[in-house]
Amino acid sequence: MTVDLAAVDAWWRAANYLSAAQLYLLDNPLLERPLAAEDIKPRQLGHWGTSPGLTFMMAHTNRAIAERRRPMLFVAGPGHGGPAVIANSWLDGSYSERHPDVDRSRAGLRELFRQFSFPGGVPSHAAAPIPGSIHEGGELGYSLAHATGAAFDNPDLTVVCAVGDGEAETGALATSWHSHRFLRPGRDGAVLPILHLNGYRIAAPTILGRMERDEIEALFRGYGWEPYLVEGDDPRTMHREMAATMDACLDAQDRIARTGEGRPPMIVLRTPKGWTGPKEVDGEPVEGTARAHQVPLKVAPDDAERRRQLEDWLKSYDPLDLLPDGSPSKQVMSAVPDGDLRLGATPHADGGRLSRPLDLPGTEGHAVPIETRGGATASATGVLGAWLAEVMRRNPETFRLFGPDETKSNKLDAVFDVTERKAPGPVAETDTDLAPDGRVLEVLSEHLCEGWLEGYLLTGRHGLFNSYEAFIHIIDSMANQHIKWMREARDTGWRSSIPALNWLLSSHVWRQDHNGFTHQDPGFLDHLATKGADLVRLYLPPDANSLLAVAETALTSRDRANCIVAGKQPEPQWLSLEEAREHLDRGFGVWDWAADDADPEIIIASAGDVPTLEALAAVDLIREDVPELRLRFVNVVDLMALQPPGLNADGASDEAFDAAFGTRTPVIFNFHGYPGLIHELAYRRAGHAQLHVHGYREKGTTTTPFNMAEMNGIDRFSVALDAIERSGRSGPGVDRLRQRVDDLRQRQHDWSHRTGEDLPEIRDWAWRGR
Amino acid sequence: MTVDLAAVDAWWRAANYLSAAQLYLLDNPLLERPLAAEDIKPRQLGHWGTSPGLTFMMAHTNRAIAERRRPMLFVAGPGHGGPAVIANSWLDGSYSERHPDVDRSRAGLRELFRQFSFPGGVPSHAAAPIPGSIHEGGELGYSLAHATGAAFDNPDLTVVCAVGDGEAETGALATSWHSHRFLRPGRDGAVLPILHLNGYRIAAPTILGRMERDEIEALFRGYGWEPYLVEGDDPRTMHREMAATMDACLDAQDRIARTGEGRPPMIVLRTPKGWTGPKEVDGEPVEGTARAHQVPLKVAPDDAERRRQLEDWLKSYDPLDLLPDGSPSKQVMSAVPDGDLRLGATPHADGGRLSRPLDLPGTEGHAVPIETRGGATASATGVLGAWLAEVMRRNPETFRLFGPDETKSNKLDAVFDVTERKAPGPVAETDTDLAPDGRVLEVLSEHLCEGWLEGYLLTGRHGLFNSYEAFIHIIDSMANQHIKWMREARDTGWRSSIPALNWLLSSHVWRQDHNGFTHQDPGFLDHLATKGADLVRLYLPPDANSLLAVAETALTSRDRANCIVAGKQPEPQWLSLEEAREHLDRGFGVWDWAADDADPEIIIASAGDVPTLEALAAVDLIREDVPELRLRFVNVVDLMALQPPGLNADGASDEAFDAAFGTRTPVIFNFHGYPGLIHELAYRRAGHAQLHVHGYREKGTTTTPFNMAEMNGIDRFSVALDAIERSGRSGPGVDRLRQRVDDLRQRQHDWSHRTGEDLPEIRDWAWRGR
Repeated sequence: MTVDLAAVDAWWRAANYLSAAQLYLLDNPLLERPLAAEDIKPRQLGHWGTSPGLTFMMAHTNRAIAERRRPMLFVAGPGHGGPAVIANSWLDGSYSERHPDVDRSRAGLRELFRQFSFPGGVPSHAAAPIPGSIHEGGELGYSLAHATGAAFDNPDLTVVCAVGDGEAETGALATSWHSHRFLRPGRDGAVLPILHLNGYRIAAPTILGRMERDEIEALFRGYGWEPYLVEGDDPRTMHREMAATMDACLDAQDRIARTGEGRPPMIVLRTPKGWTGPKEVDGEPVEGTARAHQVPLKVAPDDAERRRQLEDWLKSYDPLDLLPDGSPSKQVMSAVPDGDLRLGATPHADGGRLSRPLDLPGTEGHAVPIETRGGATASATGVLGAWLAEVMRRNPETFRLFGPDETKSNKLDAVFDVTERKAPGPVAETDTDLAPDGRVLEVLSEHLCEGWLEGYLLTGRHGLFNSYEAFIHIIDSMANQHIKWMREARDTGWRSSIPALNWLLSSHVWRQDHNGFTHQDPGFLDHLATKGADLVRLYLPPDANSLLAVAETALTSRDRANCIVAGKQPEPQWLSLEEAREHLDRGFGVWDWAADDADPEIIIASAGDVPTLEALAAVDLIREDVPELRLRFVNVVDLMALQPPGLNADGASDEAFDAAFGTRTPVIFNFHGYPGLIHELAYRRAGHAQLHVHGYREKGTTTTPFNMAEMNGIDRFSVALDAIERSGRSGPGVDRLRQRVDDLRQRQHDWSHRTGEDLPEIRDWAWRGR
Repeated sequence: MTVDLAAVDAWWRAANYLSAAQLYLLDNPLLERPLAAEDIKPRQLGHWGTSPGLTFMMAHTNRAIAERRRPMLFVAGPGHGGPAVIANSWLDGSYSERHPDVDRSRAGLRELFRQFSFPGGVPSHAAAPIPGSIHEGGELGYSLAHATGAAFDNPDLTVVCAVGDGEAETGALATSWHSHRFLRPGRDGAVLPILHLNGYRIAAPTILGRMERDEIEALFRGYGWEPYLVEGDDPRTMHREMAATMDACLDAQDRIARTGEGRPPMIVLRTPKGWTGPKEVDGEPVEGTARAHQVPLKVAPDDAERRRQLEDWLKSYDPLDLLPDGSPSKQVMSAVPDGDLRLGATPHADGGRLSRPLDLPGTEGHAVPIETRGGATASATGVLGAWLAEVMRRNPETFRLFGPDETKSNKLDAVFDVTERKAPGPVAETDTDLAPDGRVLEVLSEHLCEGWLEGYLLTGRHGLFNSYEAFIHIIDSMANQHIKWMREARDTGWRSSIPALNWLLSSHVWRQDHNGFTHQDPGFLDHLATKGADLVRLYLPPDANSLLAVAETALTSRDRANCIVAGKQPEPQWLSLEEAREHLDRGFGVWDWAADDADPEIIIASAGDVPTLEALAAVDLIREDVPELRLRFVNVVDLMALQPPGLNADGASDEAFDAAFGTRTPVIFNFHGYPGLIHELAYRRAGHAQLHVHGYREKGTTTTPFNMAEMNGIDRFSVALDAIERSGRSGPGVDRLRQRVDDLRQRQHDWSHRTGEDLPEIRDWAWRGR
């Protein structure tokens, strides 16, 4: 079929009318009578400037879908153009299907306008309540990464991605232009970016908006694209050019998918900001300037002259012709595809609908056999890697691993038995684990790893992002925004749940080797904790089997953000797989094999692999010299379980908490992260005042593992002495212990300063079991 | 003078020897006897791969400085090439001046090698202990932004910036290439980026390393640079080409500084990774591959064959010729500049030495007169803006304002009476407050704002970064790294203190208007709190005069990160300037004019402008119906003062804390941010269990201001009812209050859902004073 460009124009004008009217109107939605004061919102909130450009791009995307019957997804980078995105899905009918009170009638139209940026209504951005959106676009920078993530393993999908020239200044977006190098033509879908040069941010011109044409072309050729420029403000000419350009681009994408060769096309669209809006207000130019960014014409409801100006503007779209009786005219509807091909109805934008559970291999075959506690040694991430390789083998189209070049150094390289890294360019003879069709995505940009993964999850697939612990802070803000999206999506009631966002943080604060202080930061846990336990889980598996149990849970969970911190170095192993699963179910628990006095004087608790090792070594030290001290040992694997049920529906009951941690017994809590977090989570518990947390005190450098522990007081000596101190015990055993600690500390200091290594009897300490 | 290229080569080989030897040697620093097992570090930690490229760039920078007598600063983006940066400053003598035990002798050389990545020694990156460094380079991405920040207002300085091709993949770096558009030739210094294409990250090839030459050239032309390519592996040819290219670039910079015209030069340097290191190990290629990234040749100390291979490699540099007796030969020294021109000695890299205090105008003339409490209305940031304009007028070369296009929307636009935004391109007739020599730096990249400001501060100048509160999370990680740098710098003992890093967060969680949930996030406070009160301050000024007092303190403080959260909307004013200053001095205090019963039943506390307004309105409500309730009102302006002296040397004493907050009286604490933070800061206080915090509960959308407060329970009604509830009071007054609250809530709901505005009697509530 062919769509008439006059119909595209009618659709566009209708969408522009709807976009503008959402900012202003409480009533009189078709302007069938003169605008009265009570028709106007007293507070006018929203963004006009980007909207007509977005509607223009969506109009032409609709045309292309209708003509080619090809599924497309539209990502609106300038998500503050919410009015435009809402307008599109209302016109194509998908909005009313999700929001029946906002139907395509005069009354529905009235509600469409009234609800926008209004108490009890809908937010101003391309948020989760809008069908067809996977990208809220509030925090700028992630559109192209999301679009790319959506395209992976979706060979039949074209993702059209509007990128604002404001957004294009962000770091995340600036590196996102390299994303196409990670798409495999034929296996993955295509991304068609449209850089929208409307020239201005909220108050000033953009960098890209002021670049010369040849500089723009050079920049995008340099990024590896073939840029097509469409530029102007005359609608007729622009429709013709845009349609021809879209066709050329989609044809080029087809060719590339077929042959695997060629530079992918992208469009640079230059139109006036606030196109078709007020040209001037009070003698100041508005259209084509930053003044068009938000509300271009402020209308005090009782100002008749302003109301007339607004009416003139709105009537310029001829609403009664486009929306007779409040529903789109036949001509308008002839420009829009139908069924699931509608941008508002594509199942890719409600990824949960398409999402199948992973085919997960059993973990049993990968578990480390535990014959004696601490007897076996294993790298937790190494064990996980072998299991992940199986996951990748069984799910060759729905699971991906993302990371900034650390798959190997984080010991997950067993996955390279199954697939390779995706090569972003030619492969050299000396390269290893690198191929044009590799499914592991490595790029030294946490923004891209995160953005691609989010796009992949939002369209219903599964994945894991492995990162250095310290540098995951680079995407703090993206984590916020994704969790906020999940919250809003859940609140819609109609969106399907999506697979969990999983981070595996390795190369963590306590084991750095080649790196120093800048690589030592466990604060991502603190950051996530603020977002709420209904959507966030923080896992600190103490050993390899615990990591396997956590990974199983993480990869089957939905609508959740799971942060898993696990070491990559060989460490002693404590729990069988079965024990690890039970431990995880409870979140924390007494390790009776380590210490479980019925009436403890001191409780030693731990969370995190290295703190657990040190805490157990402290128990060992105490047992040697002060065997009469009545001890209990508690380990925490699911940190959010410390929160009471009032703050976390899955949090441990007060009974369970008190049974493990007591209410009056001093607890020495050896923690992986900043001590404050434990207090933040547990402050409502009865025994809170008795919690004494050892953790990271923001001290570090390039040094030995034990020296790092010592600098921050999570080492076995500090824990043992604190336990003794708080028990109030004294006597010859205690004196012996202090003496031994003094001696060991001195010998460790001397040895490490001579050899650069930890004292063998510290490094090779083994749990002796009791 | 002319430096002989043979000398440059000798210097380079010496630096390469020093770089390699730091990874390996405990002793025998000049290889004067065969390498024995005890000469070798058992744990070899560091990064060789990038080092010879860095030494090459530094060699040629030294040559250019020596020949031109022009001050230069070298920023090593790949900061893990610490061995190279240390080698340079040891060779130019500056290292030994700061570290006298590491002198230029045989013994000093031994210590230089031994200390590297060693317990009690120095870290592996270009960290603060290395003179000449302002950039640790551990978290990649910020080198070019730091370099640009250093160049602002330093017309005589050239900043040479090595950018690794790994780092070039990060978002922050990808957008940093636009930074030159913000430098004003003639007024600002020049930045000479050298993109180092050594082709590999830790385990795989880089994107830029695999791009075709014409794509690379197009990319950098598109970014606005004139790229010069230097490529090869033959040292003689490479020295000639690099020297000629550096000369051409520096000449071009001079021309641009003189004429204001021309594309700034940059260099693309392609050399093998691990250049001059082992070509092969065990039959696998190493030089020129990712295997050269860290330690290219693992040497077990007792493996004689490996020792021999190491010896062969190290001897290939001819150390005894270059470093006879352990100090650099005459030839080597002839390639290095002298005095403060040495890269290790430039005062720009120890900015505190150059830094003068700001000439600050008095705030008195800007203060809002307070005749009755809450009687005046003012925009806090608007008041601050007028004062900042004066600051900018008085300090035209040492103070800058940074922000992502929000100077105006955050109401700081009074500064535009003094200067403009820097135009990143041509200025159009319709532009306002935009000029080629504007000193306000706006770009829609928080990374650039932060990175430029950090570079500006590290070289001794002053500044303020204003941002949307939610989106400051984009630079969480940069904040971490800068604070870690300040901590390390302070610990050196010899670095001078630098001006504070100041963030002004406006458009905060409680006042969003045009935007919704994604723009509502107060978690930067939580993030910073983990970094420690010795370096961090969190300010929540309750009104305009308090903001002035805070700003004065912030702009005079040093070695500190100050986060200031303040609204931009017109709000009632509470404190005179003098009161505000006293209040700030104490950090928190009782507002006796609001409520100060000698024996309170309930304490109402607040932190943040909107929570304070609501808390005072709650007091007002209670007074109306339950006047007998014995109340006290406490406000907190300096959040870290809640921490006890054990955690914050400037924290309030327990006496002061208890005097305000009591130990057994219930405290309803109405807080700007996430409630957990108050518990995290105050958990050690005696009355902690009595603290009941209302704060942001992660709920929001585009709605009215009061509706936002209500959704999260920081509104006057929630506070008043909670206070009554916890007082245990009942009776007719309490019933009346509940009735009135029910009625007001209903009317607010109806009114706001009808008009989109808050109920006038809520919106226009005024403190009635008692």
